[in-house]
Amino acid sequence: MHKLVLIRHGESTWNLENRFTGWTDVDLTATGIEQAKNAGRLLRAEGYEFDVAYTSVLKRATRTLWHVLDEMDRTWLPVVHSWRLNERHYGALQGLNKADMAKQYGDEQVLVWRRSYDTPPPALEASDPRSERGDLRYAKLAPEQVPLTECLKDTVARVLPFWNESMAPAIKAGRKVVVAAHGNSIRALVKYLDGISDADIVGLNIPNGIPLVYELDADLKPIRHYYLGDAEAAARAAAAVAAQGKKA
Amino acid sequence: MHKLVLIRHGESTWNLENRFTGWTDVDLTATGIEQAKNAGRLLRAEGYEFDVAYTSVLKRATRTLWHVLDEMDRTWLPVVHSWRLNERHYGALQGLNKADMAKQYGDEQVLVWRRSYDTPPPALEASDPRSERGDLRYAKLAPEQVPLTECLKDTVARVLPFWNESMAPAIKAGRKVVVAAHGNSIRALVKYLDGISDADIVGLNIPNGIPLVYELDADLKPIRHYYLGDAEAAARAAAAVAAQGKKA
Repeated sequence: MHKLVLIRHGESTWNLENRFTGWTDVDLTATGIEQAKNAGRLLRAEGYEFDVAYTSVLKRATRTLWHVLDEMDRTWLPVVHSWRLNERHYGALQGLNKADMAKQYGDEQVLVWRRSYDTPPPALEASDPRSERGDLRYAKLAPEQVPLTECLKDTVARVLPFWNESMAPAIKAGRKVVVAAHGNSIRALVKYLDGISDADIVGLNIPNGIPLVYELDADLKPIRHYYLGDAEAAARAAAAVAAQGKKA
Repeated sequence: MHKLVLIRHGESTWNLENRFTGWTDVDLTATGIEQAKNAGRLLRAEGYEFDVAYTSVLKRATRTLWHVLDEMDRTWLPVVHSWRLNERHYGALQGLNKADMAKQYGDEQVLVWRRSYDTPPPALEASDPRSERGDLRYAKLAPEQVPLTECLKDTVARVLPFWNESMAPAIKAGRKVVVAAHGNSIRALVKYLDGISDADIVGLNIPNGIPLVYELDADLKPIRHYYLGDAEAAARAAAAVAAQGKKA
């Protein structure tokens, strides 16, 4: 039996400001740092050990991981960064306020942008200063690999090759894996692991900074999964994520 | 022409307490954190970019690197940890106060322990609670690879395979490398690069938290080297390191 631990980054400055973030590289808030440290303390208290950590190339996930490793006194663990674990790209909405968008376009349209499986938000122009195409961290990718917008389906499509080629072989080889990533890259993994339908995955919310443990069999089929720590707190945190797009 | 940047970690709690540290995994002081951040700011101001970072498995070096990467806004860079970049193992002296040892055994004996090229300090017993042989981060090493004491010659002998097998090929392939390590693992690299004699290397002091830049030709022979930032500050910092073993 394998255990895989997934952690969504702690609260970011743009979570707090209720702005669409996507690939924009915003940092954690003080609350987010505390959530990350708490995740590390929980893992330590429960006796978790890891052989390798995976994270995105975005600092809110990396910093979450660093705090987790620090609290576990495991700052020496190997860390693998991949752009494939990045948050869903939010296209031309990146930087805009979710409630403002709801006032302007209506809750329903914002819900489509946030929660449709296969309808992406309006794309960024490649020339938009918000585009990541000139960013050094993506310099080795083909330009068309750096998205200008993504729906969740697109995110799933670029997360899974990383799962199949890097993470799954490591887990099958017996390596104990922790992942610090984002709401939608974690959704992509959860959708794949649990075989969740396109319709249902958009209603599943991942709370910030609470370790989500998957117990997997030898073929990496899930046996069960659970959040570490206070189950009610996890449910409240997930509900708070779901409410972010509302006008009020 | 290649550039290699070497950074000794910032001041640690045991630097401050004037204790022999070696492989003991002590953290940075507030001063050490500031030194590390300053190193990152200098590198950023001078326009340095890196493709990969190397560090030890000790947190004072890792945390120094994290602060450097953070200040450079490069938290996404790949980081390779190796025990071969650890500080020299200080044997049975680990944890003891340098000035106390000087009072007890005399300046001369302490200077031999600190600065002889090939005389190691008294060894730890493998059963000593200070021994690292049960530490998870060394679990994949053969027991005899985890030292019970080291002279600088021993440190050079275990650093160089990592240089030859990992770092040098990366640099020759055009990857821009930064290293956050320790006084003696950096001495080992400098001794090798500059062909410094066994007698002379023990008089060379590496200041904390000041980037040391080596310009190397295509065969990785040094063209020149220099500290970034204020040269006088670097000299003062190196002199302070040299004075640590004194009774007063």
